[in-house]
Amino acid sequence: MTGPVPEGSTALLTDRYELTMVAAALADGTAERACVFELFARRLPDGRRYGVVAGTGRLLAALERFRFGPADLELLAQVVDPVTLDWLRDYRFTGDVDGYPEGELYFPGSPVLTVTGTFADAVILETLALSIYNHDCAIASAAARMVTASAGRPLIEMGSRRTHEEAAVAAARAAYLAGFATTSNLAAGRRYGIPTAGTAAHAWVLLHDDEQSAFRSQVAALGTGTTLLVDTYDIRKGIANAVEVAGTGLGAVRIDSGDLGELAHQAREQLDALGATGTRIVLSGDLDEYAIASLRAEPVDSYGVGTSVVTGSGAPTAGMVYKLVEVDGRPVSKRSTSKESRGGRKSALRRFKPTGTAVEEVVFPHGRPPAAGPHDRELPVPLVRSGELTPDAAAGGLDDARERLRTALVAVPWEGLKLSRGEPAIPTTFVTEH
Amino acid sequence: MTGPVPEGSTALLTDRYELTMVAAALADGTAERACVFELFARRLPDGRRYGVVAGTGRLLAALERFRFGPADLELLAQVVDPVTLDWLRDYRFTGDVDGYPEGELYFPGSPVLTVTGTFADAVILETLALSIYNHDCAIASAAARMVTASAGRPLIEMGSRRTHEEAAVAAARAAYLAGFATTSNLAAGRRYGIPTAGTAAHAWVLLHDDEQSAFRSQVAALGTGTTLLVDTYDIRKGIANAVEVAGTGLGAVRIDSGDLGELAHQAREQLDALGATGTRIVLSGDLDEYAIASLRAEPVDSYGVGTSVVTGSGAPTAGMVYKLVEVDGRPVSKRSTSKESRGGRKSALRRFKPTGTAVEEVVFPHGRPPAAGPHDRELPVPLVRSGELTPDAAAGGLDDARERLRTALVAVPWEGLKLSRGEPAIPTTFVTEH
Repeated sequence: MTGPVPEGSTALLTDRYELTMVAAALADGTAERACVFELFARRLPDGRRYGVVAGTGRLLAALERFRFGPADLELLAQVVDPVTLDWLRDYRFTGDVDGYPEGELYFPGSPVLTVTGTFADAVILETLALSIYNHDCAIASAAARMVTASAGRPLIEMGSRRTHEEAAVAAARAAYLAGFATTSNLAAGRRYGIPTAGTAAHAWVLLHDDEQSAFRSQVAALGTGTTLLVDTYDIRKGIANAVEVAGTGLGAVRIDSGDLGELAHQAREQLDALGATGTRIVLSGDLDEYAIASLRAEPVDSYGVGTSVVTGSGAPTAGMVYKLVEVDGRPVSKRSTSKESRGGRKSALRRFKPTGTAVEEVVFPHGRPPAAGPHDRELPVPLVRSGELTPDAAAGGLDDARERLRTALVAVPWEGLKLSRGEPAIPTTFVTEH
Repeated sequence: MTGPVPEGSTALLTDRYELTMVAAALADGTAERACVFELFARRLPDGRRYGVVAGTGRLLAALERFRFGPADLELLAQVVDPVTLDWLRDYRFTGDVDGYPEGELYFPGSPVLTVTGTFADAVILETLALSIYNHDCAIASAAARMVTASAGRPLIEMGSRRTHEEAAVAAARAAYLAGFATTSNLAAGRRYGIPTAGTAAHAWVLLHDDEQSAFRSQVAALGTGTTLLVDTYDIRKGIANAVEVAGTGLGAVRIDSGDLGELAHQAREQLDALGATGTRIVLSGDLDEYAIASLRAEPVDSYGVGTSVVTGSGAPTAGMVYKLVEVDGRPVSKRSTSKESRGGRKSALRRFKPTGTAVEEVVFPHGRPPAAGPHDRELPVPLVRSGELTPDAAAGGLDDARERLRTALVAVPWEGLKLSRGEPAIPTTFVTEH
């Protein structure tokens, strides 16, 4: 991570106090103390049974652009002293990062990310690391439940308009990582190679003199494989118009309002009666994991999901924290009224039954693993060494993460996949002495 | 809005179907039809009594950068035909935009933004406009309730770490617009000139050999006016250490955990007994509008608010939609099972009592206002004309928006400022004929 300050610096996406702490630490000599920070969730949100790690790839990319440029430094001249300003000008992260790979599950206390370096080097990444993980894990964790609920039917992420325009791109990435098939978001297609998809809006039908003209034009431009939106006026007439215009080879119809289960039934019967037996049915309109699960028995081919996935379906932030756990080899932790935390650098493994079912998340002091079980899997992997991405980290792609999550969810005890509120799917055991 | 494609193009922050609709409309000749799109909320979220318009300034800035560059077009070659690709290459918005100014209140059905132009020109802005408004209005609306609850005590926005790293910057802007005093987010300081603030983290204390060393160093670097975080170990000892190190001129102490009301009381007594009668008390730690209101009787000087403000305190998206309401002068609207909407371009005014209290939001057909009342105020203002910002839009700053909101809230009936769930503070009346 050397060279000139890249475009799109991420360094100011940071809380002011990170830099004033660096300034004070440079002045008193503690800036160089060897520190370990851990990023983890104290608990899962809202009765959830597991969390999905997401954001690792985005953090590593952001880390390469975490450099203070001239315009940044100009602002910061009002915040910190000249010595600190010089230090910021030269800043490049030169420490180590270990973490759960993207797509892995996490549970309360799982050391999802460990940043090792001097105090100044590592503290300065707190805000950015938390922003990325708190957002991306929240979306991926909600999205994974929707994928489970959909029981193999493809999900289209179409929530861009319901969240901040850049968060939308990251949300599309997190949803795809969790198993969504496609996204409506073009920037996500470009940045991450995620397949994009789309149908048409009610405005398209309203623009035309009548529904048939709108459908005819859409089919002419996009082919009979397109998806026609049939609920602008009367759904029954809409389906009749759709098949009349496109023929029985029509790709799909989309229904965006009303009693979706009942309407899907009627649509299937009508399409079949018209001979359009291969025409698929896409449902959208305020779907979340519960609505998707309730449609499992209906003749639905795919779901478009918007608001609920991009807002984390009730849990818009993952509750991750970034805590100093070790200074010069000495474990440290807060010890006041509440929010207790465990000092010392930690690692973790997951224990499995011989059948492959996960039974326990074991968090233990780094370098001192408990007696190995026959089916243990160590969870963190090296991501950055002396400021440079490891070959593993550089190679890890979204498709690997999708596969990792699929495998990890297969191993979750069946109660852990229930949508209802409950305890984490497996307990976390903290090993302190052994 | 001419010239070369600027850096940081916003054009791909868009749903794929907007562009395929443009392609089909260019092919069938409807692309040039004169259209009016309206951005509005069908309802307020979750028992809220008013919404706060935010995002206007960000949308106008994004509009100037809504241009398709060579790399964008390369991706889009897989999505649309060559004729559409040429059209996109030349795209510049040349229509008109009218809207409620930032900081204004909105209610169900208020025409917050009206985009007038050809179908192709206007439909393509749907996703970006909604992303910005749905996010920024959600944050500003939640933040305004916190400002009311704080009863004049300053609020620090410190939620960057709980939301997407770019959403964090927009959230800081929306919270400031709603009356927050400062933000922890440095990028928001740089981009929008928002005052930044910060204290220190628990990591700062843990880094040092003892609490006094940490405090001493912070005071040396940042002055006695700084805020010392006193709850890492024992709060009572923390306050004693803070005053011992900084003297009675210490700026503030921050308490981030525990029973905040009780702790604030004890801290005030202790500080006063130590002679630090001018030392302020800053509270933080999972505060929302309800917690802030419950602390009104306690000796608190300011609040740091994180998660709840950046996630919209239970309503992370504002539920705005962007609907085609008029084509070639003809009103259009969806007419199926649910989600009915009202066709025709609309404007709005707010009616007030002679005392200045708002009584009604009147939404009426554009150009046909109802008989003027003596205390009406028309709400939308021209923002863009033929693709160029109006002088008013170009001049409107965040401080104007803050003042506008303050004034608007003073006019809300007192029940409308209650935090409990309820009906909108004033009813919306839709005038169709008169």
